[in-house]
Amino acid sequence: MIPESVPERRYAIFAEGYFTDRHAKTAHGLLRYGKDEVVCVIDSTLAGKRALEVMPEVRRDAPIVGSMQEALDYSPTSVLVGLAPAGGRLPEEWMAGLKEASEAGVEIVSGLHQRLAPEFPGRKVWDVREPPAEIPLFSGEGFGVEPRIALTVGTDAAVGKMTATLEVEQAAREAGVKTEFAATGQTGIIISGWGVCVDAVISDFIAGAAEQLVLEAAKRNPDLILVEGQGALAHPAYSGVTLGLLHGSCPDCLVLCADASGEEILAGVPRPEVPRAVRLYEEVAALVKPAPVVAISVNTRSLDDGESEKYISAIAEETGLPVADPLRSSAAPILEAVLAAPKTAPMK
Amino acid sequence: MIPESVPERRYAIFAEGYFTDRHAKTAHGLLRYGKDEVVCVIDSTLAGKRALEVMPEVRRDAPIVGSMQEALDYSPTSVLVGLAPAGGRLPEEWMAGLKEASEAGVEIVSGLHQRLAPEFPGRKVWDVREPPAEIPLFSGEGFGVEPRIALTVGTDAAVGKMTATLEVEQAAREAGVKTEFAATGQTGIIISGWGVCVDAVISDFIAGAAEQLVLEAAKRNPDLILVEGQGALAHPAYSGVTLGLLHGSCPDCLVLCADASGEEILAGVPRPEVPRAVRLYEEVAALVKPAPVVAISVNTRSLDDGESEKYISAIAEETGLPVADPLRSSAAPILEAVLAAPKTAPMK
Repeated sequence: MIPESVPERRYAIFAEGYFTDRHAKTAHGLLRYGKDEVVCVIDSTLAGKRALEVMPEVRRDAPIVGSMQEALDYSPTSVLVGLAPAGGRLPEEWMAGLKEASEAGVEIVSGLHQRLAPEFPGRKVWDVREPPAEIPLFSGEGFGVEPRIALTVGTDAAVGKMTATLEVEQAAREAGVKTEFAATGQTGIIISGWGVCVDAVISDFIAGAAEQLVLEAAKRNPDLILVEGQGALAHPAYSGVTLGLLHGSCPDCLVLCADASGEEILAGVPRPEVPRAVRLYEEVAALVKPAPVVAISVNTRSLDDGESEKYISAIAEETGLPVADPLRSSAAPILEAVLAAPKTAPMK
Repeated sequence: MIPESVPERRYAIFAEGYFTDRHAKTAHGLLRYGKDEVVCVIDSTLAGKRALEVMPEVRRDAPIVGSMQEALDYSPTSVLVGLAPAGGRLPEEWMAGLKEASEAGVEIVSGLHQRLAPEFPGRKVWDVREPPAEIPLFSGEGFGVEPRIALTVGTDAAVGKMTATLEVEQAAREAGVKTEFAATGQTGIIISGWGVCVDAVISDFIAGAAEQLVLEAAKRNPDLILVEGQGALAHPAYSGVTLGLLHGSCPDCLVLCADASGEEILAGVPRPEVPRAVRLYEEVAALVKPAPVVAISVNTRSLDDGESEKYISAIAEETGLPVADPLRSSAAPILEAVLAAPKTAPMK
């Protein structure tokens, strides 16, 4: 269900008019964390500039060109369409650009809800959100996976679970720990080249899809499997996906992600306090297989340095766990805690 | 997304060779709990007998006939195909019978995973598992539903949640309480004539589908909405569906269903003890909106009368809650507890 070998891609990132928009998360993620080459970015409003110049946080440079035609001069294997347009469907002028690329034999890679394969019949299209055709039900085979499995979970959706997972992966790679990143959302999948978009799977198979992901990651013989979390146990719209992933991916330990900005989740539902979230994730995981929260990854971009330090100390005090903001400092303390966690067995 | 008015059906139940098989749950459920007429059962191995004679627990009689042709003499509006065959696809001889019915203008009603609509183009087919085309994300609109909402949950899957829900509904009807049964699985949907098979919905929309169900039920102005639960919080294969339903259906209270036979759930994962299940359902619900467990519905068919009494007393002692086996005695104590529960508001 998941490709045995992941092809190497040379990407042109199609980001017409929105490269610096914060919704262009997939484009930024691919530049920042992707292993594939990025040959250029297409955005006529920024043509002639460079990616790092307009968006230093992407950490990797690429020229910005004004048209698909110019982009094709860089011989990309693939064009990434990363942003969902407001109306849901891609505007006609975007489709024309993609058609040009596709007719030149370039693969279209899309994380949109709208599937693009039917729009380009006979051409190479990777609709990243499309789930595998055959996903088995969860069987428990994942309990036997040998490498240590860590899953990121959150006090809310969109608190930085993917970023935390990728930063821990980077720290692990730097420390020489052989690590597989098991991607569960479109951006993560584009970054790593494989994975399953678990929220696009039929409900009955969420846990089965998560189990297949860790079984697949295990085949590559890593020391550590880092599973990208989705949603949150307290987010009423996504909690089902979160729990399916929590049970299905058979984690040995959890990294809880929290955001220092104290917003509500939705419709008056508050974000749970960190200690309550720790306790509930652990208790619900333990119905199936114990998975202690071993570290807290915080996102403190809303705070200045002094406030951030205070926030981190307070959470460390409340939970007795290592706490770090991997973007502000380093993911090393989180990695250390994950590597110190033992493998766990299912409840008996 | 859900039909405004539910058509009245006159069913022929197609159960060739398996009417008394325990897997014919949908056939038995329709006879026992359905409001629609059942004009006959088709099973050539039992032709000439009557339903109550071979299967007293279905509580409603119907003649058993030997062929589809005979069944058509009873002028059914609909033929129910209730059992999933071993190989996944319906055998050719069954398809021939269904074709005969369908060509006579009779609706085919199927709870199978395999969709039958494509097999009978231009004919009336109700594929009960097919989810509505457009399901919105969960929005919190369900928090404003006026009638009291009760959801059944379980210590495991297949412990009798649907039966408990239907028995409580029956007790409510007998007590003159205007009640809507919100069905979430194929058998329940066939029994009540409407609903959404939540485990067939794309994962992102489980909670949204559950919310739409209670909003739809509320439009009928009942005093009480009884939502049929699915899976179990501790069942690793289905816990995602369970939690999506728990948060999405915005219940004010829960009825926990437990089975006296103490089997494991799957792959070494044990069924949680009842008090632990009570506590965890309450805590996880309360992340979004409080929903206390107000009663325990037990399934004691594996016990004799004395053992059953002992089991019930022990659970009542452990939990301090009303406990009843609705099939062995009555659902009245459960209904009473549900009606005494207050409406709850989302957490602030």
